[in-house]
Formats: sequence, C-alpha cells, structure tokens
Amino acid sequence: MASKKGKTRRRKKVKVAINGYGTIGKRVADAVNLQKDMSVVGVTKTKPDFEAKMAVKKGYKLYAAIEERAELFDKAGIKIEGTIDDLIEKADVVIDCSPSKVGAENKEKYVKAGVKAIFQGGEKESVAEVSFNALSCYDKAIGKDYVRVVSCNTTGLTRVLYLIKENFGIKKVRATMIRRVVDPKEDKKGLVNGIMPNPIALPSHHGPDVKTVLDVDITTVAFKVPTTLMHVHSINVVPEEVPSRDDVIEVLKSEPRILLLSEKDGFTSTAKIVEWAREVRMRYDLYENCVWEESISIVDGEIYLTQAIHQEAIVVPENVDAIRAMFELKSRDESMKITNESLGIGSL
Amino acid sequence: MASKKGKTRRRKKVKVAINGYGTIGKRVADAVNLQKDMSVVGVTKTKPDFEAKMAVKKGYKLYAAIEERAELFDKAGIKIEGTIDDLIEKADVVIDCSPSKVGAENKEKYVKAGVKAIFQGGEKESVAEVSFNALSCYDKAIGKDYVRVVSCNTTGLTRVLYLIKENFGIKKVRATMIRRVVDPKEDKKGLVNGIMPNPIALPSHHGPDVKTVLDVDITTVAFKVPTTLMHVHSINVVPEEVPSRDDVIEVLKSEPRILLLSEKDGFTSTAKIVEWAREVRMRYDLYENCVWEESISIVDGEIYLTQAIHQEAIVVPENVDAIRAMFELKSRDESMKITNESLGIGSL
Amino acid sequence: MASKKGKTRRRKKVKVAINGYGTIGKRVADAVNLQKDMSVVGVTKTKPDFEAKMAVKKGYKLYAAIEERAELFDKAGIKIEGTIDDLIEKADVVIDCSPSKVGAENKEKYVKAGVKAIFQGGEKESVAEVSFNALSCYDKAIGKDYVRVVSCNTTGLTRVLYLIKENFGIKKVRATMIRRVVDPKEDKKGLVNGIMPNPIALPSHHGPDVKTVLDVDITTVAFKVPTTLMHVHSINVVPEEVPSRDDVIEVLKSEPRILLLSEKDGFTSTAKIVEWAREVRMRYDLYENCVWEESISIVDGEIYLTQAIHQEAIVVPENVDAIRAMFELKSRDESMKITNESLGIGSL
Amino acid sequence: MASKKGKTRRRKKVKVAINGYGTIGKRVADAVNLQKDMSVVGVTKTKPDFEAKMAVKKGYKLYAAIEERAELFDKAGIKIEGTIDDLIEKADVVIDCSPSKVGAENKEKYVKAGVKAIFQGGEKESVAEVSFNALSCYDKAIGKDYVRVVSCNTTGLTRVLYLIKENFGIKKVRATMIRRVVDPKEDKKGLVNGIMPNPIALPSHHGPDVKTVLDVDITTVAFKVPTTLMHVHSINVVPEEVPSRDDVIEVLKSEPRILLLSEKDGFTSTAKIVEWAREVRMRYDLYENCVWEESISIVDGEIYLTQAIHQEAIVVPENVDAIRAMFELKSRDESMKITNESLGIGSL
Repeated sequence: MASKKGKTRRRKKVKVAINGYGTIGKRVADAVNLQKDMSVVGVTKTKPDFEAKMAVKKGYKLYAAIEERAELFDKAGIKIEGTIDDLIEKADVVIDCSPSKVGAENKEKYVKAGVKAIFQGGEKESVAEVSFNALSCYDKAIGKDYVRVVSCNTTGLTRVLYLIKENFGIKKVRATMIRRVVDPKEDKKGLVNGIMPNPIALPSHHGPDVKTVLDVDITTVAFKVPTTLMHVHSINVVPEEVPSRDDVIEVLKSEPRILLLSEKDGFTSTAKIVEWAREVRMRYDLYENCVWEESISIVDGEIYLTQAIHQEAIVVPENVDAIRAMFELKSRDESMKITNESLGIGSL
Repeated sequence: MASKKGKTRRRKKVKVAINGYGTIGKRVADAVNLQKDMSVVGVTKTKPDFEAKMAVKKGYKLYAAIEERAELFDKAGIKIEGTIDDLIEKADVVIDCSPSKVGAENKEKYVKAGVKAIFQGGEKESVAEVSFNALSCYDKAIGKDYVRVVSCNTTGLTRVLYLIKENFGIKKVRATMIRRVVDPKEDKKGLVNGIMPNPIALPSHHGPDVKTVLDVDITTVAFKVPTTLMHVHSINVVPEEVPSRDDVIEVLKSEPRILLLSEKDGFTSTAKIVEWAREVRMRYDLYENCVWEESISIVDGEIYLTQAIHQEAIVVPENVDAIRAMFELKSRDESMKITNESLGIGSL
Repeated sequence: MASKKGKTRRRKKVKVAINGYGTIGKRVADAVNLQKDMSVVGVTKTKPDFEAKMAVKKGYKLYAAIEERAELFDKAGIKIEGTIDDLIEKADVVIDCSPSKVGAENKEKYVKAGVKAIFQGGEKESVAEVSFNALSCYDKAIGKDYVRVVSCNTTGLTRVLYLIKENFGIKKVRATMIRRVVDPKEDKKGLVNGIMPNPIALPSHHGPDVKTVLDVDITTVAFKVPTTLMHVHSINVVPEEVPSRDDVIEVLKSEPRILLLSEKDGFTSTAKIVEWAREVRMRYDLYENCVWEESISIVDGEIYLTQAIHQEAIVVPENVDAIRAMFELKSRDESMKITNESLGIGSL
Repeated sequence: MASKKGKTRRRKKVKVAINGYGTIGKRVADAVNLQKDMSVVGVTKTKPDFEAKMAVKKGYKLYAAIEERAELFDKAGIKIEGTIDDLIEKADVVIDCSPSKVGAENKEKYVKAGVKAIFQGGEKESVAEVSFNALSCYDKAIGKDYVRVVSCNTTGLTRVLYLIKENFGIKKVRATMIRRVVDPKEDKKGLVNGIMPNPIALPSHHGPDVKTVLDVDITTVAFKVPTTLMHVHSINVVPEEVPSRDDVIEVLKSEPRILLLSEKDGFTSTAKIVEWAREVRMRYDLYENCVWEESISIVDGEIYLTQAIHQEAIVVPENVDAIRAMFELKSRDESMKITNESLGIGSL
C-alpha cells in the first residue's frame, strides 16, 4: 500500500473523488460536500451531457472518466480539469459510482495509485476487503482501504433487520422484493407491461448479500415491475422473542434512518410517498427506509412489515459514513449523527 | 326453495344464464357452451357496447342486465330478448359475473325465482352456502343451491397448495401476491407509476379466503403494480415432510390445471408467457397456474415457488365444475376431466 | 360588487386565499408567498392528509374546504382555523384550485362575499369575466373581479404561439397534444397500457380554448398516454412571413418563460427533462415551456416544433400575474419580471 | 440472376422460406400457409426458445438462422433440418423478417443463391429494387427479385392516404405518430414513464418512407410512449377537392383493409380495440387500419382522422401480396381479394 494513505489526514479534510457522477455519484457528491471533515476534489463523467454541465454549475471540478472521450467535452464547450488518472492523484479516496462491474475494472487504477476506494453494491463482495452498512457493521471498515457499500435493497433490508435482531433476536427472515425496473431517468431500458421474476431460480442473491453485513438466516425472492419510483419490500421475520406490535414500532421509530409513514396520512402507494418527498428534499431524495406503520403486524408470533426504499438515495449516507470509518475519523454513532444532521435525516 | 331446482334435470342439459357478460362472463359463457351437459340460455349486459354485439354475433341470447337500460339497446340497434328477470325464468342456474358486491345485491332475485346461482370471488363468503374450488372441495358443493367460486388469486393459491398438502402435508404457508392493477381492457382506472400495498395493514384477505376452500395455515400479503397481464405469486411452504425438488415438480406436473414453464424456453416474464399464450388460445386464456419450473426450490426444508396467474381466465373451469357439482352430474374427477378436455387443458 | 374590493389596496399586500391546497394550489401558495406585494392568508383542504400537514408545517393557516369535514381534521390532530367561509372573509382574492367543475360551484360563495376570484382552466370560459395568459392578454384582466387562468395545455400553446404571431404572423396552427394521463401523485386512476384519443371526435377543445386568450386560427387534437411526468405538444404553424430556423430560435430564447433544451445535452425524453429539473427546483417544478431546440424546423414554409409542458407547474406564474392585473398593481412586463425573478424563471 | 427464378413457377406452389420466425415472421408464416398458391418450406430461429418449439409444433421445418448456434437446438432437444443456407436452397423466395439492418446483411446470401427476397420496413429503401404496398403500388413489384415491404407505420399511412388521394386528391399531409415503445413480448427494453420525441430533429423519416410507395406531399412527426399494444396516427390532409365527412367515411368503408370503429361501441382507446380483437383473431392480430369513425372530420376544408395500427400484424397481408406480384401470379385486385379472404379481412 502506498504511503499516501496516512496518519495525519484526520485533521485535514479527506479529499474525496467521485468516479461516475450519475444517479448515485451526484447524490454522494452533494452529501460529501455538506460534511466539514471531507471535500469533493472532483467528479468524473463519461460524456458531456446535462449532468456534466450540472456538476460544473455546482462548482465540482470535472474530469473525463474515459481518457479517449476527453475531447468530447471540449467539443461540447465543457471545461474539464483532466482525466480520471489526474483526479485520482488529487484524492485520498475514490468513491466509485460506475455502473455494475465497471467498479471492479477500475480497482486496478486505485491500487496502483495507492488511493483508498469505496465501491457500490453492484460489485461483487470480493471487490473490497469488507462490505459495509453503517448501522450493522461500521467497525469492520475502520482503517480499511477498500470498502463496498452494499446495494439499495441490501441496505434497506439490513437497517430494519439489524434493529429487530438487536432487540428481539432473529431466527429466520423471508423477504420478497418488488423492484422498480429502471431509475426515473432511464428512457431506453425497462419492462413496459409485465412482471419479471428476477431471478427466476430461487432464492435471490439479496439474502447472501445481507449476510455480508449482518449475521442472520435470510431467504429472499425478487421481482421487477414497471415502475421507476421506489422498491418495495415485504418482510417476514421469525424473532427469537416475540415482541408486541408496539415494541416493533418503538424500535423502528428510535432510528433516524427509518421513517414510519401512515396510511391515515394518505400514504397509499409509493406514488404518494414521492409526492410528499418532492416537498421536503431536492430530487425527492429519501435516505430513510419508509416503513408503512399499519403494515407492522405480529401474526402467529412472526413479524410482518412492508417498506419502500428510494433506490437512488438510500445508500448516500452509508457512503459518507464509510469514509469516516476508513479514515478513522469518528465512531459509528458520531459519524451517523453528523451525517444525519447534514442531510436532514431525523428532522422530517 | 322452489320446485324448479329438481331431480330429473340430470338427463337434460342444465340451462345456464350468465348475468354479466364481461371479462369473466364472456369466458364462462364460451366454456359452458362447449359442454355437452349444459347450455347457455342467455347472457346479460348493462350497456350496448362491442361486448354486447359480440355476444349476439356468437349466438347468445342477449338480455338487459338493468331493466331501465333496456331501451339503450334498441337505440343502438341491438336486439335483446328481454331483461334479467326474463332470463332468470328460463334458467336452471345463474352464473353471476357482476362486478364485486353487485352479485350479493342480485341474490334476492335468484332466491325469489327459485333458481340456483353461482357467485364469483369478489363477493363475500356469506353470499353462498359454500365456497368452491374444484380440486380442493368439489364435494362440498354437491347438490347445493348457492355456490361461490373463489377469486383468481385464491384459485391459483389453492390448486398448488392442495397438491402440496395432499402429498407432503403443510405446516405453514406464506405468500406474497403481486397483482396486475387492472385488466387489459380497462382504460380509466389504474396505477400508472408506483407500487401499492393492497392492503397496507397486514395480513391480506387472501389467506382467510384460501381457508374457505382448503384447511391450511396461511398468511398472505398483496401489492398492486402497473401491469395488466397476469398476477404473480411468490409462495413459501413449510411442509410436514420435506420433499425433494423433483418430488414437487412431479406432483405439480401430474395436475393438468398446472403448467410448468421454463426459463430455458424463454419464459422470463409474464410478457413472454402471454406472447406464447396468444398462439395457443383465443384471448390468450390460460386456465392453468403457470409455475416457473426453475423457481421450485427447497431451502432449509421449505418449499419456494413462483407462479403467474391469468386473472381473466383461471376461474373459468371452476365455474363449469361448480355447475356439475350443484346438479350432481358428475364426480370431481369426471367433471374436471370433461372440463379440461373441452377447454384444451392438459394438451398444450 | 361589495365595497371590499377597493382602491387603497395597492399599498398594502393583497391578501390571497388558496381554496384547494392540492397539485396546483400548493404550488400557487408557495409562489404567492414569495411575492412582496401579496400574502397567503390561508389555504383549504378537504381532508387531513400529508398535504394538509405540509401546509401547516410550512406555516400556512389551514381551513376546511368542506364545512362538514372540519371535524376530521380535529380527529387527525391537525389544527384548522375554520372553514372556507371564514377564510373568504379574510381574503381580497380567492385562487380557486378545486378540481374541474367544482370551481364553478364555489363561485357563488365568492360573489356573495364580495371577494375577487381566480379560477383554473378546468372551468368553463363562462365562469369568469376574462380568460388569462400573462404574455398574450394581461391587460384584459386589469381591474377585473373574476378571471380564469387557462389550463396547462392552453398556457403552453399560447406562450409559443403569441411569440410566433407577434414576430412572424400566423395564418394557421395545427397542434397534436400527447397528454400525461394522470399526475404523479394519482394512484387510482389512469390508463395502464394503451393510447386514448381524448376526445375521439375532432377537433379537441384546446383550439377554442387558446382562442379565449389569443386570436389565432388553430385546430387541435389530443391523446392520453400512460405517463405521469409531462405533456408533449407537436406544433405546426403556417406563418404570415416565413422566418428562418434561427429567427424562431432567437424569438423563443428571448422569452424567459420558454426554455430551449438540446438533444445534445442528453434531453432525449421527458424522463430526462425531469431528471434535470430535480436538481434545479423543489418538486422539479418547471414553470417554463421546454422546447426541444433540434425540433424547431422550417419545412415548406411552415414552422414545426416540439415542446414538453410540466402540467403541475406551468400555470403557477400566470396565477401570480393574474393577481397583479386584477388589483392593478403592475404592468404586464413589470409583473412578469417580478414573478420570474421570484421563481427563478430566466436563471436556469 | 440464377436460373432458379423462372417462368413455370406459376403452376406450382411458390416455395417460401421465412428467415426470422419472430414477431413478424411467425405471422407471415401462418398467412403464407393459408394460401393455395404458396407453401412454407421452412423457418429459421436464432435460439431454441418457445417460439422455436411453437414453429415445430405447427409443423414448420425449423432451421438455425446462425450456423454456429445450430448445436444449441440439439442441446435443447429441438430438431432442426439444417441452417439458413440449407433452407435457402429449398426456397423460391425468402421473406427476411430479421431485426432491422440484419436483413441488409443477409442479402448477400440470397443474391449468391439466386433466390428472390422480400425485406421488411426496418431496412433502408436501397436494400431492394422497389418498396411495396399492395394498394398503392402492387404493379411496381411485378416480376421483381428484391422487394421491401414498408414498415407498419408507413403501411398504415399509405393505405389511408392512397384512398384519399385516389378519390379527392391530396395537396399536403401532416401526420403525428404516437408509437408503442416496444412490442408486447419485449421485457428488457422500453420507456417506462415518459414521452420520447423519436426523432427529436424534425421531420421524421416516415414522410419520406411513404413517398417510396405513394407520391404525396407529406411531413411527419413521431413519438414513443410507454405502451405495447398499437401505434396511433393523428392525420391531417389538405385535399385537392374538399369532400364531405360522409364521402370520406364511404371511401374508407369500401376498402376491406380499413376498419371503422366507433366510440359508441365502446372503442375508447387501443386497450378496448385489443380487447375486442382478442375475440376475433388468434394473437388478436389486426391486419386492418382501425380508424375511429367519430374522428373523421372536415375542418376548414381539411380532413382530420385518427387511426390505430397493430404493429405486429398490419404488414402480414402485404408480404403475401408481394410474393404474388414478384412471381406474377395474380393482379393486384385478385391477390388482395385472395389474401383478404384467407385471413378473414373484410368479414369482421
């Protein structure tokens, strides 16, 4: 490991590069930008589109993610500071927000440059030293060089299951995930009319993925459906000790990264949740699990609940916390508190 | 009970009236029409649209479902034979295919006229003497006057669970239903972009509804998603005796009302299933549960499987069988065999 | 007309009530709230849902839109200040943002109370003294008591056509409107899979509606399609004098309420426009016509262009300007300038 | 040109190969199979999926479209007769139903083998000697070796415009096409929520494409919307002589390949048209333009009308007629009559 990753960094701001200023990258950039102990040294884009222009407008230094495409930015009249290699030179850590599998291909660059890196959940577990969820396993990432923040679905499951496990114990979890087929900005891919088991052979990979960040017996099934807004999880938990419904509500309410929403307030679907979110956060970003309060039930000693997960936003605070763990800046509770306050988590 | 419902009817064709020639009614009419031991004496419509014209074109005698609207048919140049009251007079049994809750309102007419009646699953259990699924409880309907054929979702669940129960025993069932939000012909209602827990408070009514036709411990959860083609069920069963995956496949394959479809053949979604069905049945009617073969799994001693249910068609054979039970025409196995052969079930 | 509507009002802030704090109402409330010469004295809701809570949270005084439902708010623990009648007492003008047709029913209340009122485009032309679009006919509304701000589609058409007419003259306009079927928050209505001519008999009402605010020969056709984000207009204009493509671009660029967006920047669909808008405005509100720059063409002496219209937001600045006209606060250009600056129009 | 394409063929059945048994290919195969003067000698598939199995089940001889993939069929237990090269040897004409652009790549094979070929509208005009629409230019294809049947949208436009031109003359046509984004069987591509101008730069290629089969002044604009069922065309025609609305209706009614559907019968959207079609044709194939009768209007001397086009089926009869023209089997009117009768066109 190169000497660049060092000891005195804790007092200076951690220099963060975002490789891939897209759906996740642009959100993580804004979130990092709000932290006092870190700064965004630059972001990359593969092409000079409106997202690239937005990055510049927001004051981020822009770099070409792919060297050969650098001239496209010139032609489009967008100033870039260099290419990804130049950016890596300036960074203490790269948050790789490339499309799935591309992160793994990029890793070599990071290793060569002796820079730490955070990967997203589209990459395999083996891309990093540890997989990460702030609540469930912050400490595992302390001082690490390569960390993988688990996917939106895994993050959503893990938060809720961690709280249930800590409080009531868990014998077994069964979860069915009903996934938005593409993000809102996508206009070429999709499933227009139909339901797609994804995968068809059971169980899905989400169960094993949860196990990378939480020790729990879990089996999952997943489907894609023609919507863009949010994923929905139908969760069944067999607890060690059977809580009352109120016990579960109390536990979930205690965690700022979980929101309880009520049908009584008109939250009848993910469409309504987003309608509300449009009033409270730019880009209607919901960093929190949205659990329907009425869905929380105890049936024959098992816990049932339904939650909606904003796939574009939920991993954003986890990326910020991962940086703090990797640079040993703060403890789990301190980091989560700072991240929450900066993003407005806990104050809706 | 009036004398009309009687004993000698077995040798003559049972005279069947369809009250409500819509999505279910038109399919049941065609299915009844294919049986040698019954005949369609007439169908009703509330308005003179293309479905009414189609009924006439197919040779069904048309009646106004609502007396005051009879003149609309005249104005539209569609000949009707009278109103629902006239039709009831000619029938041995009315299959009520009205929208949910309207069937219950109609019941008084049937009772008054001393005619037997079959209701659909949108009605409450209490509308009839017994709830009906051919496989699981044919005999309960023998000789009965008022029978309720359970809904598409309940029918789909019951067929699979009956087979598993008979062969391996069932300790517990958990099922998540991902429902098409409206039928394909609907152009005013819907959910265009979103996922709707339906209901939000858990569990859903489908579990108790299954119990009206099969004695099994079951908890269900349901969602509406923006598609029109088919429902999809994600089913988890804790069996009394743990079968092998092959055992489950063999049991399901043995029942003609269940089809095993394979991802290897390109069945990656309900869109693909319907594409195939368009080649094999008019209206792409799938009377069979469509179980993805690769989804059948044994995980920690529990059975998992995923099935697609064609909500427009699956209850059609059950309505035919219900008639035979009510008029004591045939045993379960005889009736199902005749119905299957007439509809092409078992020969795809 | 009661004495309440008077002369000295120009120095004091105009007191504005919003009757119907829904999709349009909540946006108009926020816009009015940003003006120095007006203030929101209260808003109404029919039920105590998350929008009602949001109104309170934002500091608006909340009133029950329907007297009999006032107690529902109490039960839900939401404080209201009274009912719509109480609110009218406090207002100089009511902006009626009720669902279509309800505005006309409400008018009697406003007349009785001697308060001015603005209606939305879902109401018939006859509900008000004049129909209103800021660019095309601000002066017609000066000093008026009842004004109707035309609909989102009519506003979008009028802005573009006014500019073309002023600069090149118009012989004839033909427009095809492809409408989002429901707003994003709707989860019960819709068209899930299909295209609906709306109306089927041609031409559509939009042409005559444009004529209420701009003297132009126009014929329109409209369709509903299964999307929630924006309407799209395909416009063909036969000009008096044929401009060059650059002339048209220049004219449209000169108007702040029109944005030219380029395919080169990645704006390939309404999905991409909304993705961008999520970064620049709360609720991704686009008050501007979004015209695709590449679509602007001169073919055989006729102008073609394609624009996207954010149905939730586009009439918001028009409502603000209508107030200024009705209370004779400012000239057209002054009012539009103030409104634009307050809403960020012209600075994206 | 090889001697294979000859003179005596008229008495024997024309041997037709279908290269690409997909959405169009499978429909053309079934249609050719219904003709007395032609026979299907084989069909090709690129992979052994349910469509391949269906081809075999229907009795078509199956060949591998791509030589290297032949073994995949063996592995899947599907018997093939050889590869595309073997099939070409047996054919008088190949109907190339490959995806867009692949047809042009295949042409070399056909030329080399000295076999005639029909291409679909996804190919460029230059792929063939002539472009083809039965009504408008049957005679141009007589005796030709390479013919291109124009696309579904062009076919739909051409039929209607040919009839209007023949009867009333045409000065100018303006058409807006609202296109289904993907076919029903597609489950990976799409546009889930949005409207996409396609293309953005105007006008679209459909106008020039119509001109390959009909001499008319036409400008077109096109959009993709999230539906799978049918395209919809909004058409404006400036005629030489202004007809009455009834004149237009009469002319359209006289052509069997055009259906007039009425809102009065409940045809309020493409969803309703398909609901009806499911009762009258396998695969709900509508070979006819579906014109909404109420949409036909004369406004200021211009004709307006709206039609729905079933993109999967409308070119099927044209492919059959193209064969007859190329082999000089029948005149236009004779061929169209035979094709229509075999497919049930004109008898709905």
